[in-house]
Amino acid sequence: MKKSGIGRIALMLALQDGPTAERHVEKFEDHGYMLYKGKAGSMETGKIFAAVETAAMREDMIRENYREEHALYHAIMEAFSAYCRGQVDLGNVLRSTGLVFTIVRGNLVSEDRSSGDWIAVVLYGQIGSPRQGFEHEAIGMGIQPI
Amino acid sequence: MKKSGIGRIALMLALQDGPTAERHVEKFEDHGYMLYKGKAGSMETGKIFAAVETAAMREDMIRENYREEHALYHAIMEAFSAYCRGQVDLGNVLRSTGLVFTIVRGNLVSEDRSSGDWIAVVLYGQIGSPRQGFEHEAIGMGIQPI
Amino acid sequence: MKKSGIGRIALMLALQDGPTAERHVEKFEDHGYMLYKGKAGSMETGKIFAAVETAAMREDMIRENYREEHALYHAIMEAFSAYCRGQVDLGNVLRSTGLVFTIVRGNLVSEDRSSGDWIAVVLYGQIGSPRQGFEHEAIGMGIQPI
Amino acid sequence: MKKSGIGRIALMLALQDGPTAERHVEKFEDHGYMLYKGKAGSMETGKIFAAVETAAMREDMIRENYREEHALYHAIMEAFSAYCRGQVDLGNVLRSTGLVFTIVRGNLVSEDRSSGDWIAVVLYGQIGSPRQGFEHEAIGMGIQPI
Amino acid sequence: MKKSGIGRIALMLALQDGPTAERHVEKFEDHGYMLYKGKAGSMETGKIFAAVETAAMREDMIRENYREEHALYHAIMEAFSAYCRGQVDLGNVLRSTGLVFTIVRGNLVSEDRSSGDWIAVVLYGQIGSPRQGFEHEAIGMGIQPI
Amino acid sequence: MKKSGIGRIALMLALQDGPTAERHVEKFEDHGYMLYKGKAGSMETGKIFAAVETAAMREDMIRENYREEHALYHAIMEAFSAYCRGQVDLGNVLRSTGLVFTIVRGNLVSEDRSSGDWIAVVLYGQIGSPRQGFEHEAIGMGIQPI
Repeated sequence: MKKSGIGRIALMLALQDGPTAERHVEKFEDHGYMLYKGKAGSMETGKIFAAVETAAMREDMIRENYREEHALYHAIMEAFSAYCRGQVDLGNVLRSTGLVFTIVRGNLVSEDRSSGDWIAVVLYGQIGSPRQGFEHEAIGMGIQPI
Repeated sequence: MKKSGIGRIALMLALQDGPTAERHVEKFEDHGYMLYKGKAGSMETGKIFAAVETAAMREDMIRENYREEHALYHAIMEAFSAYCRGQVDLGNVLRSTGLVFTIVRGNLVSEDRSSGDWIAVVLYGQIGSPRQGFEHEAIGMGIQPI
Repeated sequence: MKKSGIGRIALMLALQDGPTAERHVEKFEDHGYMLYKGKAGSMETGKIFAAVETAAMREDMIRENYREEHALYHAIMEAFSAYCRGQVDLGNVLRSTGLVFTIVRGNLVSEDRSSGDWIAVVLYGQIGSPRQGFEHEAIGMGIQPI
Repeated sequence: MKKSGIGRIALMLALQDGPTAERHVEKFEDHGYMLYKGKAGSMETGKIFAAVETAAMREDMIRENYREEHALYHAIMEAFSAYCRGQVDLGNVLRSTGLVFTIVRGNLVSEDRSSGDWIAVVLYGQIGSPRQGFEHEAIGMGIQPI
Repeated sequence: MKKSGIGRIALMLALQDGPTAERHVEKFEDHGYMLYKGKAGSMETGKIFAAVETAAMREDMIRENYREEHALYHAIMEAFSAYCRGQVDLGNVLRSTGLVFTIVRGNLVSEDRSSGDWIAVVLYGQIGSPRQGFEHEAIGMGIQPI
Repeated sequence: MKKSGIGRIALMLALQDGPTAERHVEKFEDHGYMLYKGKAGSMETGKIFAAVETAAMREDMIRENYREEHALYHAIMEAFSAYCRGQVDLGNVLRSTGLVFTIVRGNLVSEDRSSGDWIAVVLYGQIGSPRQGFEHEAIGMGIQPI
């Protein structure tokens, strides 16, 4: 298998659907990764953070301690900052988002165990005015050692 | 063909290589898109901006007027802001990047001509300390009407 | 007539009152510009955005499509970012504003049709603590092709 | 006495407790400084600003005029921006804080009357997820002439 | 005379030329204000700061002490942050500016001596790509007690 | 011994001198911490980052791998962002700094081994115009799991 960075693994999962996404998950689970894909939508920044945090904990992708929660939080913060491309805000600046998020945990580069566990969070979706069709795509990714 | 946003078209081109990337380009050129993929690497922010601007002009993806140059510049600025996830800087904060960039011009959503031309810029690569192997992936995307 | 940038046209309208402002509007309407001046005041950022967006649509200064709404939104965002000079926030950082806003649509430079339509948004008013008299002036402007 | 900057005076008061803190206050009151230490905790940014502003006014550390209120406000804003180390926000990005704050008014450097009155605001505490124990320390300081 | 804020006095001087600007200066000098208008252009942020600082000192608009230099510096910083509407940078993000700046010192509101001396700095000009004609107007203002 | 957070340990070392600082180092080395205090001064942001990174590596406070270098880098970035209180820049915005920095590695809270190793970086010094005496104190701290 060609080597892949953890970021690319999380990005491809965010961008693919259906059987292609399922094969992607199976392939990288076989190589020791944990992968998760969920959905969130809101005008409230806090709801996006909460959706990712809750999923990571419910799926046991992070251990119940502060070190791992801290790494997850910073990965979400970086992903959300990138997603917003400037003002890190939704409803306060009168915009809304609907997105898929992916969480991947495992080696920084596939097949290379030397760097220990890392966590990647990707947000990919539509951001715009809270009117249907008045929106375009955005993406953000954060990566942290865990 | 399933509909795709212009952002997803630019993202998939950035993430794929070889024949898969070539088929991606052909498929969307057939649907009226212009697509380009290039490389850039530097500790200087300005060099990344210049690499994308130069490529877009050399490949005739934007017309030689201020309206289009303005749209391209803002798309690069948004992509680079996202890529940096906080401080929008490279060498000043002692970090370096090597990346591929993609530029896509066409409908906001494939098969939907109602919204006119848009431009998407994606930056995808490695960012980190200027020592080999001390870096992780980052991604950024900006989308503007053109 | 001396040439004037669209920004200067919007700025002078924001800074003038009464008959001087009316003559300014008439003069530039004669040269093909659309001009509007309104008022807004709030501790909530979203209310300022909404006041400008609503006025632009009610006065038919933008067409009901996403391209034009996107240009208007970015012009407001730039104007508001400038107005705040740092933290882009009002009530969250315990401050309030009362302002006039102007919206101007037309050539980037008067008498020069080569650059197509642009939109300028200016915010000018008082920003400060929510106590009477504990405030000073601020200004912000955003300009986008439309 | 060794010279000390107003910032160090405010920082040491924030970091010390009990009799050590009391001696610190007495020592610098003898040298003409006004010192205050209070507590605040919230998920709302505005409440932190309000706690410091209210204390400064109640303790007569600033005069009831806009010049002095403006200096205090900017000192709080700088301290809070530093405390947040990036996104200047609490609850919106799903985090909470409990902190002590100190306000010191007097010479920029002790024993040196040439520079007139300055005000220093320090925030020191715990910031993190709103779950017990999932937080670490942060500090911020703002200094303004008054 | 109608009352005017110090900001409006500095803004009108930046926007006017020739005899109109001269009458504006004379009128407000008669009311106790100091006014100055200069020019600066660069791809380097530091050169804009230096141009305004040097002019203020050469024209004796600030006294040679740190309190006043601090107020001037913060007024320039706020004006420049506003002028840039996001990334506070020029050449690093491959853009350039040519601008006029105004400095005004006096009462916060004309005819009202109760609030002491304040300083307003306005930057108004063209910002854009370093190619002729590929630029649009921008404005920024900072106001500080001095 | 009273419990102390790693941040407070690094802050007190930055604020103290001579024998008091030496006793502070000895006391916390006895409790398993690594502590270092150095000096840096520059108008270039990169030089401050380099001074702290070089010291941490020379003193073997971090292992020669990317996980630990990443944690150190983010701690420096947070400390420097806080230190600057807004624009994260020195010479570009025409200011300079002279500072002491401290690096501390060990438990998040003294006497509590449950949370593993963390790293705290503190910057404390004078920031201002590059003229002698035209500067005031600033502080910044970043804390990361390592």
